[in-house]
Amino acid sequence: MSFASSPRTTFANDPAPHPAVYSGQTPLAVDVLPEIRAYRGELTVSLPLRHAGARVVTLRYEGLGGAGLPAVFVAGGISAHRHVGSSAAFTEAGWWEAQVGSGRALDPTRHRIVAFDWLGSDGSLDAVIDPADQADAVAAVLDALDIERVHAFIGCSYGAMVGLQFAARHGGRLDRLVAISGAHRAHPFSSAWRALQRRAVALGALQCDETHGLALARQLAILSYRTPEEFADRFEAAQVVDGRVRVAAEDYLDHCGALYTTRTSPVAFQRLSESIDLQALEPARIDTPTTVVAVEQDRLVPVEDSLALAQGLRGATRVEVLSSRYGHDAFLKEEAAIAAVLTQALQEAATSHTPIAIEAAA
Amino acid sequence: MSFASSPRTTFANDPAPHPAVYSGQTPLAVDVLPEIRAYRGELTVSLPLRHAGARVVTLRYEGLGGAGLPAVFVAGGISAHRHVGSSAAFTEAGWWEAQVGSGRALDPTRHRIVAFDWLGSDGSLDAVIDPADQADAVAAVLDALDIERVHAFIGCSYGAMVGLQFAARHGGRLDRLVAISGAHRAHPFSSAWRALQRRAVALGALQCDETHGLALARQLAILSYRTPEEFADRFEAAQVVDGRVRVAAEDYLDHCGALYTTRTSPVAFQRLSESIDLQALEPARIDTPTTVVAVEQDRLVPVEDSLALAQGLRGATRVEVLSSRYGHDAFLKEEAAIAAVLTQALQEAATSHTPIAIEAAA
Repeated sequence: MSFASSPRTTFANDPAPHPAVYSGQTPLAVDVLPEIRAYRGELTVSLPLRHAGARVVTLRYEGLGGAGLPAVFVAGGISAHRHVGSSAAFTEAGWWEAQVGSGRALDPTRHRIVAFDWLGSDGSLDAVIDPADQADAVAAVLDALDIERVHAFIGCSYGAMVGLQFAARHGGRLDRLVAISGAHRAHPFSSAWRALQRRAVALGALQCDETHGLALARQLAILSYRTPEEFADRFEAAQVVDGRVRVAAEDYLDHCGALYTTRTSPVAFQRLSESIDLQALEPARIDTPTTVVAVEQDRLVPVEDSLALAQGLRGATRVEVLSSRYGHDAFLKEEAAIAAVLTQALQEAATSHTPIAIEAAA
Repeated sequence: MSFASSPRTTFANDPAPHPAVYSGQTPLAVDVLPEIRAYRGELTVSLPLRHAGARVVTLRYEGLGGAGLPAVFVAGGISAHRHVGSSAAFTEAGWWEAQVGSGRALDPTRHRIVAFDWLGSDGSLDAVIDPADQADAVAAVLDALDIERVHAFIGCSYGAMVGLQFAARHGGRLDRLVAISGAHRAHPFSSAWRALQRRAVALGALQCDETHGLALARQLAILSYRTPEEFADRFEAAQVVDGRVRVAAEDYLDHCGALYTTRTSPVAFQRLSESIDLQALEPARIDTPTTVVAVEQDRLVPVEDSLALAQGLRGATRVEVLSSRYGHDAFLKEEAAIAAVLTQALQEAATSHTPIAIEAAA
């Protein structure tokens, strides 16, 4: 596949000096980080969208690490974006700060880490977006960056779904896929849950202030990301306040809803939520060596779906089933366990890609 | 506790003859049902509501079976009502038709079956309603009907919560409690789920057509009543329809929402939903012999909460854990298993009430 692309990349090579850190009178030892190349850019391409036809779209990416290092593409849930980890150039915390950065599992001194903002995440594309379209958008970004081969595609949640699509459509340029809490299909129950979230947005949109519906949709989504076990630990019984019953989790949910509406457009939420529900891929189309990570308590992507995925894949497959009270959000919360999975996957990608593939084909 | 009451009861003694049933030319054998006394009535009482103070309310009840039979009080979820089973007098299907009726587990030829419309279910009481208030309302109905002692209180979901409150507050007049899919507390996660349902109603109420929000709330509730396993069996993948993604369960959910809004007022839904979240009862307050029924797949009342209830009760306790793909709705769908539970509970109430209570106290 070829894309008409007009890449524009901004390079920022760690312009700020590392500050020394002092506590009281005693200077602390500070690790001197190697200078990490960080850059952001965007490209405008015409993508043949599966349901919406050819569209000219702008894709925004961020890279961390030198061009000579093995490339790792990282993709999270529909709320995630191109800024996975902070750097001297882009100092705000990334969405996967625990895993991405110097000395972490995804280390930009050892890998060239690339991520992008989801197609549709800026709210300008009000059209049906298939997860396969996202995979093609990833390929377009890689083309623009002259990355012919990806050492690993690491996807979580929606990112895992897109990673599977990438492996199915562009597997020839991928060494290893890591699919965490995302499968080859959207579960019908989870789809129903998301459809009702979209209805909340639509209900809110009937009014002047559409953020009200979007906040409710996000709050509903939060319930699907977490578990009853966590809520039982965190929240007490309901109370009567001003003649209404207020349950203990409402302050937390209010916070989640308000935060989300400041950074997400209703159109982007609707279209990316829909996109999850379009995931429907035959695992046998994939022969890329894959690590499938499932979470026992995930209420959105049941373990059974991850196991069915693993059984259907044609390449060498490693399955990790984690146990976490954070359910679907384990990829964000279980930092040590996820780091171990990522480290092992990158090692396997580096050392045993070809032999494993042969073994699986036998 | 005494209530100022003004009972008015309408008796209807099976006025219509039983029709013979023919299929083609061959007359089928028809069981001749004994004449079953069926009656409806209402009473106006002043109830001291726990949060809202004294209120004059109208309670509407229905009875099936002769006054000389052992009384069984039946209570379902917040959508249930006084018409549990059909009779010649009141021919429309009751909400628990599978269990209540001549020849069924709750047989009005052997028991005097009583039920009522939940306090607040007519939408006229826009105030905080505690499950304990419902228990007092049940006691007022029993007073009006001159039922001093209840052979069994059979409660499902919210009805089980109210049954536990009845046992704690009026245990002296109760032989046995059956608590199906309802516990001594509202689970904090389930409460959060309900709080968001109430927000959907509130969001809808900001518009002219408040049924829109109520329909969404009901659809969200349906997801909490059922299971992913059932949805996986029933519903296929999503489709793109007119430029939007429509998931396979949406037709079903549309039907559920539309049906609900024709028979439920938003105020009634809000106040009864709130009431569930106020459930907070110390099981040790209850020494009535009790059958606790939990469903392994119940996502609203986790099995753990039912087991904690059973462990905390002071009276003789039987625990039944069912497995059902219908989750919380098992009490409506698993007809044979529930019938067996009810039959056994009524036998135990009849034969071993005192010995069991003594044994448990030892």
